[in-house]
Amino acid sequence: MSVHAFVESLHQFLQKDQISQNETIREQHSVDESYHKGQVTQVVVFPRSTDDTSQILKAASAHAIPVVPFGLGTSLEGHIVPVQECVTIDFSEMNAVLEVSPDDLLVTVQPGVTRSQLNRELKKHGLFFTVDPGADATLGGMAATNASGTTSVRYGIMRDQVRDLEVVLASGEVIHTGSKAAKSSAGLHLNGLFVGSEGILGCITELTLKVYGIPEYEMAGRATFPSVENAVQAVVSLLQSGIPIARVELLDEISLKQLNHHQKTAYPEIPTLFMEFHGNEAGLAQDVEFMKEIVAMYDCDAIEFVTDHAERNRLWEARHNLAYSFIHGYPGRKMMVTDVCVPISELAGAVRYAQEQLVELALIGGVTGHVGDGNFHVILMIDLSNPEEKQRADVYNERLVTYGLSRNGTSTGEHGVGYGKQKYMEEEFGAALGIMQQIKATLDPQCILNPGKLLPIKGAVVNESIV
Amino acid sequence: MSVHAFVESLHQFLQKDQISQNETIREQHSVDESYHKGQVTQVVVFPRSTDDTSQILKAASAHAIPVVPFGLGTSLEGHIVPVQECVTIDFSEMNAVLEVSPDDLLVTVQPGVTRSQLNRELKKHGLFFTVDPGADATLGGMAATNASGTTSVRYGIMRDQVRDLEVVLASGEVIHTGSKAAKSSAGLHLNGLFVGSEGILGCITELTLKVYGIPEYEMAGRATFPSVENAVQAVVSLLQSGIPIARVELLDEISLKQLNHHQKTAYPEIPTLFMEFHGNEAGLAQDVEFMKEIVAMYDCDAIEFVTDHAERNRLWEARHNLAYSFIHGYPGRKMMVTDVCVPISELAGAVRYAQEQLVELALIGGVTGHVGDGNFHVILMIDLSNPEEKQRADVYNERLVTYGLSRNGTSTGEHGVGYGKQKYMEEEFGAALGIMQQIKATLDPQCILNPGKLLPIKGAVVNESIV
Repeated sequence: MSVHAFVESLHQFLQKDQISQNETIREQHSVDESYHKGQVTQVVVFPRSTDDTSQILKAASAHAIPVVPFGLGTSLEGHIVPVQECVTIDFSEMNAVLEVSPDDLLVTVQPGVTRSQLNRELKKHGLFFTVDPGADATLGGMAATNASGTTSVRYGIMRDQVRDLEVVLASGEVIHTGSKAAKSSAGLHLNGLFVGSEGILGCITELTLKVYGIPEYEMAGRATFPSVENAVQAVVSLLQSGIPIARVELLDEISLKQLNHHQKTAYPEIPTLFMEFHGNEAGLAQDVEFMKEIVAMYDCDAIEFVTDHAERNRLWEARHNLAYSFIHGYPGRKMMVTDVCVPISELAGAVRYAQEQLVELALIGGVTGHVGDGNFHVILMIDLSNPEEKQRADVYNERLVTYGLSRNGTSTGEHGVGYGKQKYMEEEFGAALGIMQQIKATLDPQCILNPGKLLPIKGAVVNESIV
Repeated sequence: MSVHAFVESLHQFLQKDQISQNETIREQHSVDESYHKGQVTQVVVFPRSTDDTSQILKAASAHAIPVVPFGLGTSLEGHIVPVQECVTIDFSEMNAVLEVSPDDLLVTVQPGVTRSQLNRELKKHGLFFTVDPGADATLGGMAATNASGTTSVRYGIMRDQVRDLEVVLASGEVIHTGSKAAKSSAGLHLNGLFVGSEGILGCITELTLKVYGIPEYEMAGRATFPSVENAVQAVVSLLQSGIPIARVELLDEISLKQLNHHQKTAYPEIPTLFMEFHGNEAGLAQDVEFMKEIVAMYDCDAIEFVTDHAERNRLWEARHNLAYSFIHGYPGRKMMVTDVCVPISELAGAVRYAQEQLVELALIGGVTGHVGDGNFHVILMIDLSNPEEKQRADVYNERLVTYGLSRNGTSTGEHGVGYGKQKYMEEEFGAALGIMQQIKATLDPQCILNPGKLLPIKGAVVNESIV
């Protein structure tokens, strides 16, 4: 393997400005938003078409050079951090919205299109794209990590939105994983397999995604409870009753305190649900009455609803700013976010355990959760210059994962595995991990596609320098 | 390969009454509800546990005996019809509802549980299972074929309901494909891969499925239109508007005529939508007014709503009896059902093409469609004793598939590939078929799992006797 010869070969089919070995560019493409640090990529390439991508993969295969696909670098588990000498493929120049089909409620985009860019385009047609992971990520990256977020309880996760992917395989061959039909019972389900595969099976060069009509009427709500258990149990009842919850987010005492401090708000500092509902006006008016009855059964302290656009935005802005409230509140510290997801019946216990462990391990952090999915995050603020504290944070993360797996949950609800969570895959999947490894080995026999991510591979290079 | 030695080995771990070589039993297990005919299975076994199934697979691997998993035999493309000497595994004795978890909106069942059996159990908890393919199939079979039906437009298809499968692989090894978490970004998505894999990757021995609270309020409706185009366009507008359509079925002139004739009903014999809505009373009342405006834009002749339980049942009974109306109306003929699914924007054109081709090929049949999904069926009534007519029916099926694929659709929206549609897989998937075949070869190197189904395999035995 010679990076030099590989880079030379790129010049045969790429323009000069599509290849960069500039140190700053290489460094920018070697970090994501996580605390994971690895190597610096050798070269960054900027394909402008599927054909460019195919040629890059062919050359990488021929030279046995590892390939790391890159969207905007918003990943949270070191997905795009190189663990060995590699080429990084930056898809930001493939950022066209290719087709909006309002009748089919579909849109076809290139992988570099961002979520906000797509929604600006869709708004012209009265449509919107539902998945909202917080960060303004690219859709290619969101598909690669199977992203989700606050609206998943109603509209599903990234995988649920994907009708078709164009994928360039390790060999440079181009395939389509699906079709534009709303459903299919033909063949094996490659859409599902490639979504969430974190670049280890191929590079996504086009996506056809499901979109929705903008709801006729939206309403937001905020409800406070004496305990996390009461809040979670209220959500279970709301879900069982079929009330059209579009978002339902839990914030714990510490998170609200941090939010109030940073945003100058005055929310009561007790377990709180931030909620949103999509429907029609009459239906939601009836649901409000029903909801008041339900939450009262769980000793709700207060429930308030807002329908005004500005007020709704204020509420969700507060929720979205939670991470920033912690970051700005603890200068010099780095954020580490857990991502365990458990069956909802286990959520209250898991949150309580997470809170207890914060105290036991003397760590700074708050809990927030996508309650409808059983997925919760602890936002930890870590002093990385203190190895002992970093180690306590690792122990914390591991304890939460072990707890979640013992309750039939998953180590990662939406952030993905990347570099950081590979070590849990064997415990999570047991014998099924062998099947995943066999599929990987079959589709990428040289193991050049994003090595060191998602699946532990026997005999793979392990980067001891990553932290 | 010796079937005799294989059957002998079964006696080492199965009870005598779990093994049958009775001719009638063997014949019953060698046909499904389709017109496809193949060989008669050599032996039928009845596992009572995952361990039984694992031992059977181990023995089948050791003796290189093909294995055909069997639910209730309601498949429509010869999925369970043997194409070579084999053992059939009948899962009807593994029919326990293992756990209902109302808080998690989950249920865990064995594969032999039928849809109606599950719904009887769930009703006690105020819950229901949404997928309704018409037939009272087993849940193992429904997962194996990725079944769907009238309610998919609202609640999704079988694959959307599966949280976890226990699967016995060709080697006898037992894996779990998922967890009980509502979402996960860990590992490769094996749930999706095994759902719809038609027994070619493993045998399903346990399923954890998503369930829903029974809706507070249900309303049915019937709307008539001057043309199929108008009816389809009205549905597109209803979907875009976010109206909570739970079912929307199109019936064409011929289907309504057949229905009226057989059921003594008096429905107008023009393109008609049968609809169902799930929500709350106030919301649906507002939606009714909105819907009236929408359908009027597409020259709706008449729209009627019914909320009374008995009247709603009458409407859906009529729809469910459509196939029987054709079967009883044409004694001596056999039903052949097409299953193309296209993007909704292509549906009206596809239905018109299907109607034209019925005339051109002089075939008896009517069109019905799950309009919200773009999936439509032509129920053809064929005289199988007339080879020339059978050939015209084959040409018809092929023309519809070709039309659907040229419009970015799929050859099968919900019935699956089985034996009958393998020949279309190369046209449908192109290079992606190679990936599917590689995955199959990796997981089942001896090709003993339901051979001759779903994927054309190079070098596989082809059964010339199948028709």
